[in-house]
Amino acid sequence: MIDRLAIIGVGMIGASLALALKQARAVNHVVGCGRNQTSLQKGVDLGVIDSYTTSIAEAASSADVVVLATPLGAMQLVFEQITDIVSEHTVITDTGSAKGSVVRVAQTALGDKMAQFVPGHPIAGAEKSGVEAGLASLYQGRRVILTPLESTDPAAVGKIDNMWQLCGASIEYLSVEHHDKILAATSHLPHMLAYSLVNYLSNLNDHDEIFKFAAGGFRDFTRIASSDPVMWRDVCIANGEALLELIENYKIELDQLSVAIRDRDQDRLLELFGKAKSERDSLIGNC
Amino acid sequence: MIDRLAIIGVGMIGASLALALKQARAVNHVVGCGRNQTSLQKGVDLGVIDSYTTSIAEAASSADVVVLATPLGAMQLVFEQITDIVSEHTVITDTGSAKGSVVRVAQTALGDKMAQFVPGHPIAGAEKSGVEAGLASLYQGRRVILTPLESTDPAAVGKIDNMWQLCGASIEYLSVEHHDKILAATSHLPHMLAYSLVNYLSNLNDHDEIFKFAAGGFRDFTRIASSDPVMWRDVCIANGEALLELIENYKIELDQLSVAIRDRDQDRLLELFGKAKSERDSLIGNC
Repeated sequence: MIDRLAIIGVGMIGASLALALKQARAVNHVVGCGRNQTSLQKGVDLGVIDSYTTSIAEAASSADVVVLATPLGAMQLVFEQITDIVSEHTVITDTGSAKGSVVRVAQTALGDKMAQFVPGHPIAGAEKSGVEAGLASLYQGRRVILTPLESTDPAAVGKIDNMWQLCGASIEYLSVEHHDKILAATSHLPHMLAYSLVNYLSNLNDHDEIFKFAAGGFRDFTRIASSDPVMWRDVCIANGEALLELIENYKIELDQLSVAIRDRDQDRLLELFGKAKSERDSLIGNC
Repeated sequence: MIDRLAIIGVGMIGASLALALKQARAVNHVVGCGRNQTSLQKGVDLGVIDSYTTSIAEAASSADVVVLATPLGAMQLVFEQITDIVSEHTVITDTGSAKGSVVRVAQTALGDKMAQFVPGHPIAGAEKSGVEAGLASLYQGRRVILTPLESTDPAAVGKIDNMWQLCGASIEYLSVEHHDKILAATSHLPHMLAYSLVNYLSNLNDHDEIFKFAAGGFRDFTRIASSDPVMWRDVCIANGEALLELIENYKIELDQLSVAIRDRDQDRLLELFGKAKSERDSLIGNC
């Protein structure tokens, strides 16, 4: 049971965590913190949070657990503002999509309290954003990756592990570096490809007609291009090196396909598409 | 009312057309034609078709409407086999995803009967395939593009227009060239990007883990990579030039993004992602 939970950044991810813990009767009081009072009041009205403040220090001051659920670019400031406020018993965690950059700024800002910080990343979300997009069921059956350091307090890790389990998630442990490499491939790269496709098509002359004739496949393919631009700007800054390498190598994969198309190489085309289909069908399920 | 409808190639597209017309009581008898008798028998058992034959000539011989719903690469052979069989009252149409190549082979094979051929393309489908994937509702509210030539018999066009309307579709008219340009952008290019992403990721060392941590966005994004490889091989052969140009230009769009990531240009990243999000939200709807 968490007596007092502080959620810094009450968007879809933070709101869903609060709702899931309330549904599990695993938290007594949730204080939300953000810059937008209208949004925070909406969070209270919707029963997502019990109270709110725009002061990070105030939110963290008596919290048992502080969750940073802001875009990555805002986390350094939050760490700096809570480091002298939180007690030695407070557990700090985050929900950022890249972990290396978060750990770096946390180490600098938290100093001695770094052992109380458990870096985390729930693999869930949608192209929606904001407190009203919060869903108590968002984490049911989803994975949450935790990337504690050797120096992280095992009791703190246990507390965050338990918190996410109470939301219905299964917990996985990865190193910071491994997390960032894998997520760059499965999440960050696809978002870059989808954003770029929509931008490319919208720059074409007949773009109104192009979107008019878009079918279901296109809608699915570009859904993630409706994701929050601030979040993805920050991911690019946080995990840029891994992303740049993936984009370059992806272009080489595209070139292999272009060669097969230009050569009208039917066997090779069938091999490329057949391999992709069987990989996806077997690994993802035909869902 | 169509008295006798011949569907050459009873996969998801052909089966869904048959089911929709039956549900609308707009057809008396559907004869299916294909190479796989087991699949054709399944079509009869499922009530999709009323009878079947593996002879294209036999299927077409007394049909009022012949629908070519095969992959693009099989269409030339079908046109060649039906040209001397069909009556001057028979209307021929197809469901191919590219229209230029179909019109070219039809012109050669059909000769005088070219006026009876109405090139068509229902903008519907899924990553599923086969007769058992047929759905009576597949075309409800979807668009069907017809690309008749100046020489096409207006009565034949009217018949096919009406046929698709009875399936719940809305009909759009485009030139062959315009169709192929637009579909290359909205459909063919996204399929190439999705196939290439899955192949690229499956070649990485830790690909099992990569797919393990794939979230909903990745599943949506790569759904079309589960599409039929034969169909997409044929699209690449049929519409290769348009596709090659789009892939090259898409790579230039990716390069612009890479520059912004490398320069850590936060304003530019926000601009790129914000533009894509607002384009997609406004043109596609946040669906």
